[in-house]
Amino acid sequence: MTDSGRTNPARGQGRLGIWLVGARGSVGATTVVGVLAVRARLAPSTGLVSELPEVACAGLPGLDRVVLGGHDLGDESLAKRAERLASGGVLPAGLLPLVAEELAAVDGRLRPGYHRETGEPQAAAVDRLQRDLEEFRAENGLAHVVVVDVASTEAPVPTEALTEGPLVDVEALDRALAAGEAPLPASSAYVLAAYRAGCPVVSFTPSPGPRLPVLEEVARRQGLPWAGSDGKTGETLLKATLAPMFATRALHVGSWASYNMLGGGDGATLADPERAASKLATKARGLEAILGHPVEGPMHIDYVADHGEVKTAVDHVSFEGFLGARMSLQFTWTGYDSALAAPLVVDLARLVLRAREVGETGPLPLGFFFKDPAGSTEHRLSAQWDALVAWCARLGEGA
Amino acid sequence: MTDSGRTNPARGQGRLGIWLVGARGSVGATTVVGVLAVRARLAPSTGLVSELPEVACAGLPGLDRVVLGGHDLGDESLAKRAERLASGGVLPAGLLPLVAEELAAVDGRLRPGYHRETGEPQAAAVDRLQRDLEEFRAENGLAHVVVVDVASTEAPVPTEALTEGPLVDVEALDRALAAGEAPLPASSAYVLAAYRAGCPVVSFTPSPGPRLPVLEEVARRQGLPWAGSDGKTGETLLKATLAPMFATRALHVGSWASYNMLGGGDGATLADPERAASKLATKARGLEAILGHPVEGPMHIDYVADHGEVKTAVDHVSFEGFLGARMSLQFTWTGYDSALAAPLVVDLARLVLRAREVGETGPLPLGFFFKDPAGSTEHRLSAQWDALVAWCARLGEGA
Amino acid sequence: MTDSGRTNPARGQGRLGIWLVGARGSVGATTVVGVLAVRARLAPSTGLVSELPEVACAGLPGLDRVVLGGHDLGDESLAKRAERLASGGVLPAGLLPLVAEELAAVDGRLRPGYHRETGEPQAAAVDRLQRDLEEFRAENGLAHVVVVDVASTEAPVPTEALTEGPLVDVEALDRALAAGEAPLPASSAYVLAAYRAGCPVVSFTPSPGPRLPVLEEVARRQGLPWAGSDGKTGETLLKATLAPMFATRALHVGSWASYNMLGGGDGATLADPERAASKLATKARGLEAILGHPVEGPMHIDYVADHGEVKTAVDHVSFEGFLGARMSLQFTWTGYDSALAAPLVVDLARLVLRAREVGETGPLPLGFFFKDPAGSTEHRLSAQWDALVAWCARLGEGA
Amino acid sequence: MTDSGRTNPARGQGRLGIWLVGARGSVGATTVVGVLAVRARLAPSTGLVSELPEVACAGLPGLDRVVLGGHDLGDESLAKRAERLASGGVLPAGLLPLVAEELAAVDGRLRPGYHRETGEPQAAAVDRLQRDLEEFRAENGLAHVVVVDVASTEAPVPTEALTEGPLVDVEALDRALAAGEAPLPASSAYVLAAYRAGCPVVSFTPSPGPRLPVLEEVARRQGLPWAGSDGKTGETLLKATLAPMFATRALHVGSWASYNMLGGGDGATLADPERAASKLATKARGLEAILGHPVEGPMHIDYVADHGEVKTAVDHVSFEGFLGARMSLQFTWTGYDSALAAPLVVDLARLVLRAREVGETGPLPLGFFFKDPAGSTEHRLSAQWDALVAWCARLGEGA
Ligand SMILES: NC(=O)c1ccc[n+]([C@@H]2O[C@H](COP(=O)([O-])OP(=O)(O)OC[C@H]3O[C@@H](n4cnc5c(N)ncnc54)[C@H](O)[C@@H]3O)[C@@H](O)[C@H]2O)c1
Ligand SMILES: NC(=O)c1ccc[n+]([C@@H]2O[C@H](COP(=O)([O-])OP(=O)(O)OC[C@H]3O[C@@H](n4cnc5c(N)ncnc54)[C@H](O)[C@@H]3O)[C@@H](O)[C@H]2O)c1
Ligand SMILES: NC(=O)c1ccc[n+]([C@@H]2O[C@H](COP(=O)([O-])OP(=O)(O)OC[C@H]3O[C@@H](n4cnc5c(N)ncnc54)[C@H](O)[C@@H]3O)[C@@H](O)[C@H]2O)c1
Ligand SMILES: NC(=O)c1ccc[n+]([C@@H]2O[C@H](COP(=O)([O-])OP(=O)(O)OC[C@H]3O[C@@H](n4cnc5c(N)ncnc54)[C@H](O)[C@@H]3O)[C@@H](O)[C@H]2O)c1
Ligand code: NA
Ligand code: NA
Repeated sequence: MTDSGRTNPARGQGRLGIWLVGARGSVGATTVVGVLAVRARLAPSTGLVSELPEVACAGLPGLDRVVLGGHDLGDESLAKRAERLASGGVLPAGLLPLVAEELAAVDGRLRPGYHRETGEPQAAAVDRLQRDLEEFRAENGLAHVVVVDVASTEAPVPTEALTEGPLVDVEALDRALAAGEAPLPASSAYVLAAYRAGCPVVSFTPSPGPRLPVLEEVARRQGLPWAGSDGKTGETLLKATLAPMFATRALHVGSWASYNMLGGGDGATLADPERAASKLATKARGLEAILGHPVEGPMHIDYVADHGEVKTAVDHVSFEGFLGARMSLQFTWTGYDSALAAPLVVDLARLVLRAREVGETGPLPLGFFFKDPAGSTEHRLSAQWDALVAWCARLGEGA
Repeated sequence: MTDSGRTNPARGQGRLGIWLVGARGSVGATTVVGVLAVRARLAPSTGLVSELPEVACAGLPGLDRVVLGGHDLGDESLAKRAERLASGGVLPAGLLPLVAEELAAVDGRLRPGYHRETGEPQAAAVDRLQRDLEEFRAENGLAHVVVVDVASTEAPVPTEALTEGPLVDVEALDRALAAGEAPLPASSAYVLAAYRAGCPVVSFTPSPGPRLPVLEEVARRQGLPWAGSDGKTGETLLKATLAPMFATRALHVGSWASYNMLGGGDGATLADPERAASKLATKARGLEAILGHPVEGPMHIDYVADHGEVKTAVDHVSFEGFLGARMSLQFTWTGYDSALAAPLVVDLARLVLRAREVGETGPLPLGFFFKDPAGSTEHRLSAQWDALVAWCARLGEGA
Repeated sequence: MTDSGRTNPARGQGRLGIWLVGARGSVGATTVVGVLAVRARLAPSTGLVSELPEVACAGLPGLDRVVLGGHDLGDESLAKRAERLASGGVLPAGLLPLVAEELAAVDGRLRPGYHRETGEPQAAAVDRLQRDLEEFRAENGLAHVVVVDVASTEAPVPTEALTEGPLVDVEALDRALAAGEAPLPASSAYVLAAYRAGCPVVSFTPSPGPRLPVLEEVARRQGLPWAGSDGKTGETLLKATLAPMFATRALHVGSWASYNMLGGGDGATLADPERAASKLATKARGLEAILGHPVEGPMHIDYVADHGEVKTAVDHVSFEGFLGARMSLQFTWTGYDSALAAPLVVDLARLVLRAREVGETGPLPLGFFFKDPAGSTEHRLSAQWDALVAWCARLGEGA
Repeated sequence: MTDSGRTNPARGQGRLGIWLVGARGSVGATTVVGVLAVRARLAPSTGLVSELPEVACAGLPGLDRVVLGGHDLGDESLAKRAERLASGGVLPAGLLPLVAEELAAVDGRLRPGYHRETGEPQAAAVDRLQRDLEEFRAENGLAHVVVVDVASTEAPVPTEALTEGPLVDVEALDRALAAGEAPLPASSAYVLAAYRAGCPVVSFTPSPGPRLPVLEEVARRQGLPWAGSDGKTGETLLKATLAPMFATRALHVGSWASYNMLGGGDGATLADPERAASKLATKARGLEAILGHPVEGPMHIDYVADHGEVKTAVDHVSFEGFLGARMSLQFTWTGYDSALAAPLVVDLARLVLRAREVGETGPLPLGFFFKDPAGSTEHRLSAQWDALVAWCARLGEGA
C-alpha cells in the first residue's frame, strides 16, 4: 500500500506511530519512557532538539499525537528494562511508577522481531513484519507510522555483495526472496517491510538497513522519505564540532587518538570485532572530510562491563601550529549513552513524520543527527545545523 | 594626514607597514620572527588563517610587501627575546640564525613607547608616537601602516570615567590634553596617535585601546577601519566552538569551570588582579551569549612561572540531558600561547591593511579572531567564520 | 567523671557510643546510614579500612556494639538529609526504607549543638554538652563514647591568640570561662566538654578542635587518647600517594596545580574565604614535607552548586627529569565526597574506642586518615599505612 | 673466564664498563649522552635514583670510573641519533657539541650485534660477543663490566620451548649450539656471552634475555648477579604507586583501562603484535598482585608516529566505595620515554657493578626499577623502595 502524494501542508491532524525496531534495548526503552514522561510533563524537554524554536517551527507533531510500538527479539518487559536503566543511572527511579501503566500498554504493542538465524524464510518474515506495521496503523488509526532502527549493531555487508547477486536490483531481490533465499541482513528486511507498508524509515544504527542501493530504489519507487545512519551522540559529535575549529584556524592535526569505553546496551555487541567494524567505519568518516587530509590515530571501542550504561570517550588530538609549535587537546566525554541517543530518536521520528505529512521523499537533510549522513558529504556540525534549520523553515511553510 | 577615500579595489601595490605596540614581548617577537621566516620559505604557513583560500581571496597583501616596526618600553633586543622563546619551545632554535639580519633591521625601527608612569605629558607623548608612525611610513615609502596592540594587558577603565570628564567626547579630550592632563590609558594614547597619523588599528589585547567611545568617534571622523579586542587563542576559542554544540543539541550546561595556567609573556602581568580583571571580563562574555543563560563556574588565570611559555587550560563542563541525566565534558588545551597568537596578529594586520586599501571604515567583522568582538554580539566561531568568509569575498571584488 | 586507667586489653565487652558533632550534615548522615546498613548486612564493607585484616586484628569493636548519637545546630531530620543524599547519588535510594526505624532512633538521640553566635554563655554551653554526653553514656549503658567532629569547617584561630590571653593554659581558660567569656571556638568547646565527660575525641575537620595547646594539656591530664585533623579523602590522599613516587624517582616537581570543585555539604561553607583558609592550610602541608622543597602552584577550592555531592579534583603536576626533560602528570578524581569520608569516620571511631579500651593516651598514630596528622610529620601514605598496621598489631595483643 | 669470588667490600677502585646491547637506540643513545653530560657537570643529576642519599650510600661507582661500549645492529652514529633525540625534545640541543668528542669515542667502541636472521651460526656468534666483551674489558683495564639490554623488544619464548628441547638445561643447550642450532633468542645469546665473559647482566627490556631457566642456571654456576626485567618508567610506575592506595583504603577497583601512545624508539617495534605481547604481559602483572583480584579493563599500546619520542599514557580507573558509590580516577602521563628510561639504566648499571664488587650473586632485589621483577612477587613501589634502601645500606657496609 503506497502513499506518495503531497498531503495538506498545514499542521497534520490525527495520531502518528513511532515503531522502534529493538524497542526493548537501552536506547529503545529510554526512548519510550522519555516520550511518556515528557508528554506527561513529568520531565523537561532538555535534550529534545525538536523542541528548539529553530526546529519546532517545522510544524512537528506534538508528542500527545504519538503512539509507540515496535519489534524486538528479547522478551524482557519494558518495565524490567527501565528498572535496570534506572539503577544504571540513565533514568530517574522516581519516574517509573508514574509511567508504569502507559509503559505496559506500549509493551503490549511490541511484536517478535526477525533475525536470520531462525528457520523462518525471509520472504515470510518480511510479510509478517509488514502485516505487524499495517495492523499497528489500523488498530490505532494512525495517519502515518515511522519505523526507527535502534536494534543491535550488525556487521557491514561486503561491498561485492552489492554489485552482483540478489542485492543488485529490486527484481533480483524479489526473485531471491521468492526462491526462499535470505539475501537481506535483518536491519534491511525491516526496511523492506516498512517501505511495503508505506512507512518512512530512520536508521539510528550503523547497520546496513536502508543503505543497500536496492532499498534506496524501493524507497524512490514508494516515494517515501528516509533518514540515516548511526546516531551521533558522543565522540563523533565532538569531532564534528572541534575539527572545523582546527581547519578554519589553519592548525594542522597530526594525529587524533579515539578511545571509547562502554558497558551497557550495545557495548556487549560491539565487543564482536565483525559487528564493531560497521561502527568503526561510520566513526572514522567525518574527520578526514572536515580536515581535508587523512589523520593518523588509533580508534578503539572497548566493552568494559564495569562501566554499565556510562559511555566514556577519551580523545587525544596532537596538532602543529605556527612555525612548527607542537600542541595538544585532550578531552574526556562522560555520558549516559542511551540518554544521549533517545531524545535524538524522538527528534528524528517527529521530523520524518512531518516530512511524510508534507510529501518529502528520499534521504532527508538530517546529517546533524548522524555519524554517516545519507546523501551528504557535509560533516561539520554547524553547517549541518544550518541545513536543518533551513529545511525546518521550509517544512513550516509546508514546502 | 587622512586618506579616507576608496582607493583602487584591485590588488594594492607598494609596501605596507605593520607597527607592533609591545613588539619586544612574547607575541610581538614571535610575530616578527614568524613573518621573516614564512616569507623566506623557512617555515610553512601553518597557523595563518590569511593563507586559507576562503580568506586569501580578499586580495590580502603578500608578506613580501610588509615592513615591520613598533614601540616598546623594554630594551631587550628582538634577537635576545627570540632566543628565550626558542629555549621556551615557542620558536625552533635553528630558525634564528637564518633571520638574524632582518631581525636586527626590524629592531632598529623600534621606538621607545609611552606609559603614564613617566613624567612625559600625554599630549607630547601622543605627538611623539604620531611622528614615529609618520616617519616610519615616509622612510619606508609605505602606502599604509596598521598599528597592532600586543602590549601588556592593562586594567579596565571604570565605566563612570566614560560618561563624564575628559573622555566624554573629542572636544573634552582635546581640552584635557591641552591642559596637560593624562586622561587616556597608554593603550588608548597609541590609538589616538595612530588615528591622527591616518593609521587603522588592531587591538589584540583586552586593554581599553580603541574601545573608548571617544576614540570610536575619532576613528569615524578619520574614516578609518579598526578591529578588536583580545585575540582568541585558547580556552575562549574552544568555548566559542563547543558552546554552540550544547545549545543546538538542547543540552543544558549547568556549570563551566575554567582553569588557566601560564608562565611566560603576559602570565606575570595577569598575576595582578586589577589587570587580570579586563582579561577575565572578555573571557566570560561569549558563553552566556551562546548558551542564552548565565552559567555558574569558577574562572581562574594562574601565573605558574614553572610552565614558561606553555598555556594550559583545563575546563570542566557539567551538563544535563534527557530526563535529567547528569553528564560531563572535560578538556585540557596545552599550547604555546604566543605561537597561537602571532599568526592571528599577522592575519589581522593583512586583513585591516586590505580593508584600508578598499576604503572600509569603522569596526570590521573580525569576531572570528577576538574574545570581545567590537560591533558584534555573535560569539559562535562557525558563524564568525561564515561572516569572515563572506566579507573576504566582498573585499576580493574590491567591494 | 574521668576514666583514664588501663582496662582489660582483651576484646572489650558492652556497648560503645559514637557521638557525631554535626551529625545532620552530609558526612554525618552518610556515616549513620552506613553503620546501620553495614551492620544489617544491607551493604558490603567496601571502603571500611577497619575491616581490612591488617587493621581488624587490633580487636576493634563490632558495629553491632555501637550506639550512635550527636549534636547539630540544624533541625532537618536524618531521614530527610538521607533522602537528599540519595537523590544526590551518595546513598542508594533503596537502602533508606530498610534503615528508617533505626535512623529515627538515632535522630531521637541528637541534641542541639552550640555555636558562639547565640546568647548562651560558653561555660554553661560546655556544661550542657558534657551533660548530653554523660546522659548518652548512662541511658545506653555505654562502656566508652568517642566524640567525632564532622561539623562545618571553622576559620583558624590566629596564632597570637594561642600564646597570650585565655587560651595560654588550663587555668587561664577556666578563669575566662568563669568570667563569662567565650574564648573557645565551637569545635574546641565540644572537645573540652568531651574530655570533661571522659570521652576521647576525633577531629575529622580542619577546625581548631583538639589542636589548641591548652586542650592537648587537658587531654594529657585526663589520660585520654585523641586523633586529628581533617579527613584525607580526595586530592590530598592522591598527593600523599604520588609525591613519594616523584621523590624516590629523583624527578623534580616544578609545580603542582590543585583545582577542587564541590557543591554539597561543606562546599557552601568553604565558599567563605576565612573558613576555607583552614582547609587550604591542611591541604598544602603534606607536599612540601614529602618532596623536601616548596612547590609552586595554585590551590583553589571552588563552590559549584551544580556539582552537588560530587567532589571533582583536577591536579596538574609539571616535573623535570633527566637532562632537563619537561614532563607532566594530570589527574582528575571524581568522587562522592561524603561517601569517601563516612567510612573513615567509622574506622577512626572504632580505632579510638579500641585505644580507649586498652588505655592508650595522647595523639594516636592515625596519620593514614588525616591531611594534618597530630604528633607526626610523616605524610607519605605508604609509611602512614605501615605505622597504622604496626600499631594495630600492638593493639591486638592489648599492648 | 669467570670471576665469582667476593672482592674487597670497601669502595672499589679502577675503571668499570657499562656495555649497552642496543646502544644506538633511543634509550641507548640517551643513556650515553646522559652519562657524559652528568659526569662533566653539564647537567644536574635529576632522574638518577643512584644519586639519592638512601641509594648512593651503597658505595656506588662514580660516573667518572665508567667506560661505555655496546653492541647494535644499526649503523647510525650516536651523534646522528643524539641529534634526532634533540629535535624530538628528549635531549637539549645545546648539550651535543659539548660531548661530541667523548660520544665519538664511545661510538668507536660499539661492535656489530647479533640476530638470528643473519647466516651466522649461533655458537660462533656467542663466541664473538664474548670476545667483544673480553677485549672491551682488557683494552680499557676494567675491573668489571655490566651488560645492559636496551635492544628492541622481542617476542616471548613459548612456554613449552622451556620444558623440552635445547633450552631444558645447560647440557642440552651446549649440545644444540655445538650441533649448529640457534636455540636462543638474540637477547639470551647476549646473556650467555656475558656470563661466559664473567659479566653480570641487566635486562631493561621485556625480552626473554636472562629469564630462560637454563640461563638462570648458568648465572648460578658463574656466581654472577643479574637484574630484570623491563624498565618501569611510565604507566606501570603509576599503577605500582596508585593501586596500593585503593587497596589500603578498601576501595574496590572495578576496571582499569590503559591506553598508551608512543611514536619514537620502541614504538615502531611494538606495532608488531607478536613483539607487543611480551610488553603487554609485563605491564599486566603488577595490578592483580597488588589489588588481590583480577581487574577488567582494556590495555592498548598504539604506535602513533606523530607523537615522536613522547609517550602518553591515559588510564581510567573506575572504583566502588562505601555503600556502592561509583567513582573514578583518570590520569594522563606525558613523558619523554627515553629520558625516563636512561637514568634508570645508569642506576641499574651502577648498582649491579657494586653488587659484583661485593660478591652478590643471583637475581638482585631491584623490583623498584622493573615491571616484571625477577625473584619477587612484590609490585608495590613503596615496598620495593624500602627493599632497595635496605639492600643499599647492606651494600654500603660491604655486606
Ligand atoms: N548513544 C547510543 O546509545 C547510540 C548512538 C548511536 C547508535 N546507537 C545504536 O543504537 C542501537 C541500540 O543500542 P542499545 O545501546 O540500545 O543496544 P541494546 O543492546 O541495549 O539494544 C538493542 C536491542 O535490539 C534488539 N535486537 C537485536 N537484534 C534485533 C533484531 N534482529 N530485531 C529486533 N530487535 C533486535 C535487542 O534484543 C535489544 O533489545 C545500536 O545499533 C547502537 O549502535 C546507539
Ligand atoms: N595567546 C596569547 O599570547 C594572547 C592571546 C590573547 C591576547 N594576548 C595579549 O597580547 C598581549 C601581549 O602578550 P605577551 O604574552 O606577548 O606579553 P609580554 O609581556 O611577553 O609582552 C608585552 C610587551 O609589551 C610591552 N609593553 C608593556 N606596556 C607597554 C607600553 N605602554 N608601550 C609599549 N610597550 C609596552 C612590554 O615591554 C612587553 O615587551 C597581552 O596584552 C595579552 O593579553 C595574548
Ligand atoms: N570528603 C569529605 O566530605 C570531607 C573530608 C575531610 C573533611 N571533611 C570535613 O567534614 C565536615 C563536614 O562536612 P560535610 O560535607 O558533612 O558538611 P555539611 O555542611 O554537610 O555538614 C556540616 C554539619 O555540621 C553542622 N554544624 C555546623 N556548625 C555546628 C556546630 N557548631 N555544632 C554542631 N553542628 C554544627 C551543620 O548544621 C551541618 O549539619 C567539614 O568540616 C569538612 O571540612 C569532609
Ligand atoms: N621508557 C622506555 O623507553 C622504556 C621503558 C621500558 C623498557 N624499554 C625497552 O628498552 C628497549 C629500547 O627501547 P628504545 O625506545 O631505545 O628502542 P629503539 O628502537 O630506539 O632502540 C632499540 C635499539 O636496539 C637495536 N637492536 C635491535 N635488535 C638488536 C640486536 N639483536 N642486537 C643489538 N641491537 C639490537 C636497534 O638497532 C636499536 O638501535 C625496548 O626493548 C623497550 O621495550 C624502554
Ligand atoms: Na563533604
Ligand atoms: Na622508548
